[in-house]
Amino acid sequence: MILFILSLPVNSDRFPLRLLCLRDFHFPLPMTKISVGLLTVSDRCASGEREDLSGAALAEALPPETYQILHRSIVPDEADAIASTLREWADSCALILTTGGTGLSPRDVTPEATLRVLDRLAPGIAEALRADGLKHTPFAMLSRGVAGTMGRTLVVNLPGSPKGVREGMAVLLPILEHALTLLRGEQPH
Amino acid sequence: MILFILSLPVNSDRFPLRLLCLRDFHFPLPMTKISVGLLTVSDRCASGEREDLSGAALAEALPPETYQILHRSIVPDEADAIASTLREWADSCALILTTGGTGLSPRDVTPEATLRVLDRLAPGIAEALRADGLKHTPFAMLSRGVAGTMGRTLVVNLPGSPKGVREGMAVLLPILEHALTLLRGEQPH
Amino acid sequence: MILFILSLPVNSDRFPLRLLCLRDFHFPLPMTKISVGLLTVSDRCASGEREDLSGAALAEALPPETYQILHRSIVPDEADAIASTLREWADSCALILTTGGTGLSPRDVTPEATLRVLDRLAPGIAEALRADGLKHTPFAMLSRGVAGTMGRTLVVNLPGSPKGVREGMAVLLPILEHALTLLRGEQPH
Repeated sequence: MILFILSLPVNSDRFPLRLLCLRDFHFPLPMTKISVGLLTVSDRCASGEREDLSGAALAEALPPETYQILHRSIVPDEADAIASTLREWADSCALILTTGGTGLSPRDVTPEATLRVLDRLAPGIAEALRADGLKHTPFAMLSRGVAGTMGRTLVVNLPGSPKGVREGMAVLLPILEHALTLLRGEQPH
Repeated sequence: MILFILSLPVNSDRFPLRLLCLRDFHFPLPMTKISVGLLTVSDRCASGEREDLSGAALAEALPPETYQILHRSIVPDEADAIASTLREWADSCALILTTGGTGLSPRDVTPEATLRVLDRLAPGIAEALRADGLKHTPFAMLSRGVAGTMGRTLVVNLPGSPKGVREGMAVLLPILEHALTLLRGEQPH
Repeated sequence: MILFILSLPVNSDRFPLRLLCLRDFHFPLPMTKISVGLLTVSDRCASGEREDLSGAALAEALPPETYQILHRSIVPDEADAIASTLREWADSCALILTTGGTGLSPRDVTPEATLRVLDRLAPGIAEALRADGLKHTPFAMLSRGVAGTMGRTLVVNLPGSPKGVREGMAVLLPILEHALTLLRGEQPH
């Protein structure tokens, strides 16, 4: 395969050289990676009292050849902080995954904060995550996570434990690329 | 059983003949069929670019001895067009089934339009449709369909593919008559 | 184990005696029982036309060594009566379970009344109840029950039949104590 790339490099005299470099090079698909924001919601992680193992589990679950982590942050269990971070990231991220704050503790408000910014719900994603979770533990029914879209960005709340994150990502990964293709308004292959 | 049917035929001189035909005829129950509206939501079907195979699959899935299709229409993926059609049909239909517009594409707004007109949600119907769908494909979790009641009318969003419609109707048919009996305020048998 | 209980009995001259009785007595844990309100929602039970078998099934399903029924009432299928009872009980009950009014009959409004008073939804509990119900009967998908929190109180809508109550409680009991520990803001063991 020979690729001719039209670009306007700042340093335009390097253009012929660059073209040479690219010829005969086989690009792996997709050439553009999926931009991701990872948000850990936890009072104790935000204060530094606890290591953010769930955020790390999220990052590890995303194959780097397909996903590019643009943002990764930790916020306390405050609805305003969660909602404003989601809004801020929506412009640059195709996918935002949260971990934490979906349980029954009085401070758990991630679903409420997420619902504030979503324009369309995707209840089937949340249901599938919990239905799979119930195979591992009956306590999965206590996860109150939601999922949906904010413009062209997909937002999914995952549980707050590294194990819950890994199990959830095993459910999500097979459908994520297709979901994001649809959300961009493109026809899936 | 002898049935005397009172009707006012346009061509009234055929009335005695018709009465003769019906005498000694054993009507199967229910004598009153369930009135149904079938709404296909699709830009491409509305423009004529694509054949409405999902609407046809819906119509085929309803046993004609029990269900009578009163309305069948195609509207584009516009929330106002969907909501106003649902409102218009609610007076005459015990059941309205939609197909299409429940996915993640930017134009998919069938659930949002349906939520506008529902007065009570029936989340278990939507959950059961998706849980069954997940047995066939993990992409079923992307269906955002809702179900609920609008007065005495049951409204259910089904997926936008003929296969999704057929699978969904296999889940719905065993409970539909019972559900509509309850919704009419009658005691089930 | 010797327990010294500090209390201020109205009849204070009995205090030394009471202390003697308690010494060497091994209290089973938890020492403080979970306070529960049981609400039956049914026009026919409220009018006395029908016996409240579902409320009785709820009461029987709660192990008395762990749960203490503080309130038990029957209200008709009226959203205002349901919502005001839930609000009234929330101060004193850690858990409120309802039975009835979750179906498709025109008078069934328990989910709508419950949604009015909940501040956070726990959709996974309602999903788990229905998913289990579907193992017993496809009509379980018609249950529209919701679950969630009202301050530090967990509220769960259960179906309106004794069988539905017993099946639902078998799903709930394994997670209830843990859920209520979280909801009190305590760390689970």
